[in-house]
Amino acid sequence: MTLLNLAAMGSYTVGGRPVTVEGETARRVALSAGLEFEYDPNGRYWIEQAYVQFFVPQQRLTDLPLVLIHGGGLTGSTWETTPDGRPGWLHEFLAAGVAVHVVDNVERGRAGFCALEGEWEGMPIVRSERESWALYRIGDASDYELRIPYPGQCFPVTCLDDLTRRTVPRWPGTVHAQRRALLALVERIGPCMLLGHSQGGGFAMELASARPDLVRATIALEPHGDFSSIGSVPLDGRPLLGVSGDFLERDALWRDLDAKAQHALDAWQRAGGSARELRLGERGLAGHSHMMMMDSGSERIAALILEWLANVGCMRKGG
Amino acid sequence: MTLLNLAAMGSYTVGGRPVTVEGETARRVALSAGLEFEYDPNGRYWIEQAYVQFFVPQQRLTDLPLVLIHGGGLTGSTWETTPDGRPGWLHEFLAAGVAVHVVDNVERGRAGFCALEGEWEGMPIVRSERESWALYRIGDASDYELRIPYPGQCFPVTCLDDLTRRTVPRWPGTVHAQRRALLALVERIGPCMLLGHSQGGGFAMELASARPDLVRATIALEPHGDFSSIGSVPLDGRPLLGVSGDFLERDALWRDLDAKAQHALDAWQRAGGSARELRLGERGLAGHSHMMMMDSGSERIAALILEWLANVGCMRKGG
Repeated sequence: MTLLNLAAMGSYTVGGRPVTVEGETARRVALSAGLEFEYDPNGRYWIEQAYVQFFVPQQRLTDLPLVLIHGGGLTGSTWETTPDGRPGWLHEFLAAGVAVHVVDNVERGRAGFCALEGEWEGMPIVRSERESWALYRIGDASDYELRIPYPGQCFPVTCLDDLTRRTVPRWPGTVHAQRRALLALVERIGPCMLLGHSQGGGFAMELASARPDLVRATIALEPHGDFSSIGSVPLDGRPLLGVSGDFLERDALWRDLDAKAQHALDAWQRAGGSARELRLGERGLAGHSHMMMMDSGSERIAALILEWLANVGCMRKGG
Repeated sequence: MTLLNLAAMGSYTVGGRPVTVEGETARRVALSAGLEFEYDPNGRYWIEQAYVQFFVPQQRLTDLPLVLIHGGGLTGSTWETTPDGRPGWLHEFLAAGVAVHVVDNVERGRAGFCALEGEWEGMPIVRSERESWALYRIGDASDYELRIPYPGQCFPVTCLDDLTRRTVPRWPGTVHAQRRALLALVERIGPCMLLGHSQGGGFAMELASARPDLVRATIALEPHGDFSSIGSVPLDGRPLLGVSGDFLERDALWRDLDAKAQHALDAWQRAGGSARELRLGERGLAGHSHMMMMDSGSERIAALILEWLANVGCMRKGG
């Protein structure tokens, strides 16, 4: 067990916008057996903010905080205790002397979602366990019913229920609002490092390529997103690490996403940045799923990321 | 600044139930510019779980963990940094040697809400800033536009936006599911103390009165709820502290809720429990709102609660 000696912890909200509702009808609502209430939906609200929980270790080996950005359909709980009960990456980075800011982006987790009519288009979508199984590359879709994972799978398959309980609804149309909130976050905290997963990895790369003055290093775990803006600002040597797990070749969607991510790394390099690929299978870490931060052996991946941060000059020696 | 030396931190999910969706039509959905996707809503999901984040200090002055239960329309972020940037009660209790489990109950925060059709009745309701202003007793509703608080108000009124950004939607019909998840939580962690606010205070008292074998002490901050079951189990001396702030007499709703809470404390006493009222105004702490954990001077209220926990034998001497 690693003790965590913290200098500070807390949370803040950032970004979003106020909206005003008018012309709605008030009605009686029972909020509990003891509280019936005249509910008037008219008034002022905030929507599209992000929630950020931060932890600062007493012994820091870098002045740059690390922002952890979850993937789609997930929240900041991604980085906490793994489904099988081991410490997550939040714990690993703190123990290594890095201050960590964990995001719940717009609509997810403690950021809250917008329930005001007319603001967000359509209904939220949800992720079934079968979709997680296939999309997170735990196993082939046809093997979901019998829960037969890919051979050598590192995801803790017997604890799949815990991942399912951490999956939350999402609106496909809130991508721009999520981008804006992350930009507001980085403008608030100043020079920092970003680590994003999946949709969050795409956001991390977009934001880092737009604001290399603030984002000093970026780690993208199997990112997807709109990489078209990479190159619009010179990247001045800024380092990017693209991390990918195993079983990519088994799924047409992932072959496509992996190819797009590699093109984005090339674009990063052409824009004057310094991109590196970390394909875990080629570094002796076989069997990793899309949910690599929850996999058995996840701490070894965190250690490789910390080693890379040291190599690119973002960590001091210590320990 | 108080340093926090933690032995452990992490999170878990608890309670809820699996549901299966069948017979829905799949459709194409774009999850990002890079990922268009065949979205199939059929399959297995978990709903109605609670999310719990826990922190264990290295130096503990009690073996009983303290469970913090937020109020309606709020999440576990209630107990973190105050709107004006001071450490919250989570910080205070950890620094005092208490292990803390912070709940995001069913539908709130990282617990996720149920977006499956046919499971939850109706639409979520939202809390406007004006409603917060009046219901949290920051000031009279008629003084909201000019933001003129009650005289001597301790809530950090100039930081009201932060509270508004931490307010999240709720379904009035999920009360039973929230109760079930809290029961599952207490059955999982074993003997413990509960501290609940508002709706969460009502849940804490209900749960404590049903399971005095597990709940060893209860603090209810201006609770409301269904107190009718108090007395169905002998309470065997179990201690309860009801905490209330100021300005209760200014609002008809709060006069009623306060009277109901006092009756519930009487019922607790008659059932063999040991109930005590802490009216902050009568202890020299005037001007507290319903959001007393965010008020200026909130740390003094936490200290009174800790003193009470020591008096009822739930804390060892130390420090």
